[in-house]
Amino acid sequence: MTRHTYTIGIDFGTESGRAVLVDTADGRELATAVHPYANGVLDEHLPAPDDDVRLEPDWALQDPEDYIRTLQETVPRLLAETGVEPPDVIGVGIDFTACTMLPTTADGTPLCSLADFRGRPHAWVKLWKHHAAQPEADRINAVARERGEPWLARYGGKISSEWFFSKALQILDEDPDIYRAADRLIEGADWIVWQLTGVETRNSCTAGYKAIWSKLDGFPPDAYFAALDPRLEHVIDEKMSRRITPIGRRAGGLSQRAAAWTGLLSGTPVAVANVDAHVSVPAATVTEPGTMVAIMGTSICHMVLGERTATVEGMCGVVEDGIIPGLFGFEAGQSAVGDIFAWFVENGVPPAYHELALGRGTDVHQVLEEEAARLRPGESGLLALDWWNGNRSILVDVELTGLMVGATLATKPPDVYRALIEATAFGTRVIIDAFESHGVEVGSIVACGGLPERNKLLMQVYADVTGREFRIAASEQTPALGSAMFGAVAAGAASGGYDSITEASRRMARLRDETYRPSQACRRVYDDLYREYVRLHDLFGRGGDDVMRTLKRIRRETVGAAAG
Amino acid sequence: MTRHTYTIGIDFGTESGRAVLVDTADGRELATAVHPYANGVLDEHLPAPDDDVRLEPDWALQDPEDYIRTLQETVPRLLAETGVEPPDVIGVGIDFTACTMLPTTADGTPLCSLADFRGRPHAWVKLWKHHAAQPEADRINAVARERGEPWLARYGGKISSEWFFSKALQILDEDPDIYRAADRLIEGADWIVWQLTGVETRNSCTAGYKAIWSKLDGFPPDAYFAALDPRLEHVIDEKMSRRITPIGRRAGGLSQRAAAWTGLLSGTPVAVANVDAHVSVPAATVTEPGTMVAIMGTSICHMVLGERTATVEGMCGVVEDGIIPGLFGFEAGQSAVGDIFAWFVENGVPPAYHELALGRGTDVHQVLEEEAARLRPGESGLLALDWWNGNRSILVDVELTGLMVGATLATKPPDVYRALIEATAFGTRVIIDAFESHGVEVGSIVACGGLPERNKLLMQVYADVTGREFRIAASEQTPALGSAMFGAVAAGAASGGYDSITEASRRMARLRDETYRPSQACRRVYDDLYREYVRLHDLFGRGGDDVMRTLKRIRRETVGAAAG
Repeated sequence: MTRHTYTIGIDFGTESGRAVLVDTADGRELATAVHPYANGVLDEHLPAPDDDVRLEPDWALQDPEDYIRTLQETVPRLLAETGVEPPDVIGVGIDFTACTMLPTTADGTPLCSLADFRGRPHAWVKLWKHHAAQPEADRINAVARERGEPWLARYGGKISSEWFFSKALQILDEDPDIYRAADRLIEGADWIVWQLTGVETRNSCTAGYKAIWSKLDGFPPDAYFAALDPRLEHVIDEKMSRRITPIGRRAGGLSQRAAAWTGLLSGTPVAVANVDAHVSVPAATVTEPGTMVAIMGTSICHMVLGERTATVEGMCGVVEDGIIPGLFGFEAGQSAVGDIFAWFVENGVPPAYHELALGRGTDVHQVLEEEAARLRPGESGLLALDWWNGNRSILVDVELTGLMVGATLATKPPDVYRALIEATAFGTRVIIDAFESHGVEVGSIVACGGLPERNKLLMQVYADVTGREFRIAASEQTPALGSAMFGAVAAGAASGGYDSITEASRRMARLRDETYRPSQACRRVYDDLYREYVRLHDLFGRGGDDVMRTLKRIRRETVGAAAG
Repeated sequence: MTRHTYTIGIDFGTESGRAVLVDTADGRELATAVHPYANGVLDEHLPAPDDDVRLEPDWALQDPEDYIRTLQETVPRLLAETGVEPPDVIGVGIDFTACTMLPTTADGTPLCSLADFRGRPHAWVKLWKHHAAQPEADRINAVARERGEPWLARYGGKISSEWFFSKALQILDEDPDIYRAADRLIEGADWIVWQLTGVETRNSCTAGYKAIWSKLDGFPPDAYFAALDPRLEHVIDEKMSRRITPIGRRAGGLSQRAAAWTGLLSGTPVAVANVDAHVSVPAATVTEPGTMVAIMGTSICHMVLGERTATVEGMCGVVEDGIIPGLFGFEAGQSAVGDIFAWFVENGVPPAYHELALGRGTDVHQVLEEEAARLRPGESGLLALDWWNGNRSILVDVELTGLMVGATLATKPPDVYRALIEATAFGTRVIIDAFESHGVEVGSIVACGGLPERNKLLMQVYADVTGREFRIAASEQTPALGSAMFGAVAAGAASGGYDSITEASRRMARLRDETYRPSQACRRVYDDLYREYVRLHDLFGRGGDDVMRTLKRIRRETVGAAAG
């Protein structure tokens, strides 16, 4: 009888950390443990006793102690609940939000845990959705364009305010003491692996997607950083590292301290860190080019693999070894999807539908979906541009806003709900078209995340609009499962794991049975509507009509005049 | 001591008739009586015993018996309630919806009251909002353009499906027996005056605005009607009349039969019939050029007077003697205003606002207005095109639909409510600009109708957006008051009335005290927003971008395919 082995995957999310214990043989999830972060997202003030320190709008910080507590809380619970013995846990993998970064001392101590610095906002973890570094991002882009930096094209021509150097530069701009005191600037993902293993290890995924690194060219030259700010010239060598380890490798063994936190054996293999969206790809069974993984929740991440690099308009990035070792990983995204539906349910749906939901013991989304499912494509008479939170791909413009056309006195809430679903599906089709027109094939799609399980209409509309078959990942927690799979690869076949993520994916990842296939009749109508969508997309998104930017400008002037 | 005299005005509306008894000296309204029509609007089937006869979509009929019963019910009630003696009622005036028309025999008997015809839909009164004659309107416009008919320009280049000849031609097209049996085709307004006086008298207002008549050129030539349909060649001489009496004249004295219905003295002077919107102008104190009257309710009618005729793009009509004798009356309109706000409250406002309204003992409009009033111009970040029911002026296109741009995840219902108010105000400004650019001055505005009394924010936004002072008519029933004023003119000064509507207006019409003056600071922001509105208005309304028509076409094809 072969020995039964297990791995643990830990997904560090925005509000909580989630660990799952998985059977290495078939990916069966034996138990899950969730730890809500005590300090959650810090967006109004620092934690006590410094809660008199207010944060500016657009700030979003976190407390690194919450990550450690996640390890301490969840892993022992998994072991207790399943009765699995520590020696049978052959590997651990983690994934994290990104870019989520922090300044530390040389031994990895977060600056915010030092008495001298804990009252200073820049000492804390900057969460991915910290949006206060836009001026720095603008400077990064302007200087790159000026110098003709070739790497800009890899990121669709624009570096985001969410990314690593925008955040690092903001620290330097606004609190140079903190910048000076920081021996290391590091992704949360890599920091937690450092805490687990005692060894600083930086992964190829966050380096590639968030910190302008590539396997071929490394980081931008020092001269570029000097042009941004002379004090930044040697940031890579002084505060980061040029040693980037591909995902799929083992970072090290669990330290004694981390073994004590978790109840696992010291020396247990720990995988190189990964990012939540990217680690979901093999967990959704995809390890080869040709199939897109759509992680569908409040927003959508679109991941696809390629044999060769390609420059695709407005995507978030292309990184060799970024998703699956040996392949180029392409990432694009829609900045609001489930968020738009939630906004509509909260702000645009009259009492009758809430009462109906209450009466049926269901929720408003469900009621609207049932009513909207009775409509044919085109029957609502509505068409929307899904830019309620700007456009991340392919236009990369946060100044863009939502538009709806076609309203009449007969328009009902399910018409609007369906039009919003359709608009987000058109947004996905624009991204697919951009990939394919640059030679990156998207034959079919696997969806994962919170939306696909709950919303059959949504999935069918996406199939009809894109003309592609949609399947759904079986796991409801693909990031944690993916991390567990990388844990199995860190262990290796000799220890009961796998020697490659492709092999791990084949054995541990599964799809649900149902398949959403495009209906030819619906597709014809959607082709017509998509033509209209693309025309409006280009008109309002590419500068032909600047009304969206003008409204934002007028709003800023109005609100500014009132405040001043 | 001078003798106290009174007049009665009767306003025949869509759902009911309303009579008011007014003091001739100062316009004081002593009593009001309302009679809801027993058969209301017939839009699904004929009345019993013919209720098995179904009506097609877009049909809207009425029962002329309801008009007679209004006379019988309301006038005696006014006399009883006030104790006014019949000899002291020196005149009667009426106004009506238009174009509301019916076929009758030579003595004025409606065909629908004859046993042979009452089961046939075309024998009944076609209400103003009967919209089933669009094919006929299309033909009327096409033939007019083909023949280069000069009168088309007076109506902004387009005859509406609501108007007289569209409805007459539909009778001929669909039930030629009824057309043949009709000795007379007549406006409801003129028919009720015929019933009151025993003499067929046709007024200049409905003839001018609804039946393509002008004082200078009369009706279109017989050859034009022959080109529409040979059987229609002599429609004017066979079934109508070339004798059109200007408003402000006396049609005749009350017949003995009508005296018996109403309790008034036979011989009491009866004014020439008028239209609800048009009769409101002098009741809102306006009898001279330079001041626009805006009748603001579910939709808006814009009325303004001129010394000379002018061809203004897309207005509803210009008629000499159409509103005030001796002047040209210009009419324009927005097809949905209050209707849009009502649509939003019913379809787009979440429970919290309904609960707030309940808690405060007010309605949802009031709650939204209070919240929206806290916003500055431009603060919502939204801009809308107010075409939820197409565009009546100046684009004259029922295929246009509502558009909203600028939505974000932070958009709240009061933002939308304010943007909808602003959009309708921009729509009014487009109409004012069209008038002024063609030499028709609009110096200030008097509002009447249901909206202005209730909605202070609305009035202030209209003042700020148009840059014009808004005042409000004192009467809450300007059509009935205006009819009573025309009753006083029918009586004449010698009998205790007035010799002109100008004199009657000076004595009997009043404004409320409050004045809405444009704020210069708000106006500057609205000038910016209006520039955006006009650009989108022209882009989507003048064929630059055809998405609205395309969505309507796709919708028709989709719904048609499902039905077929």
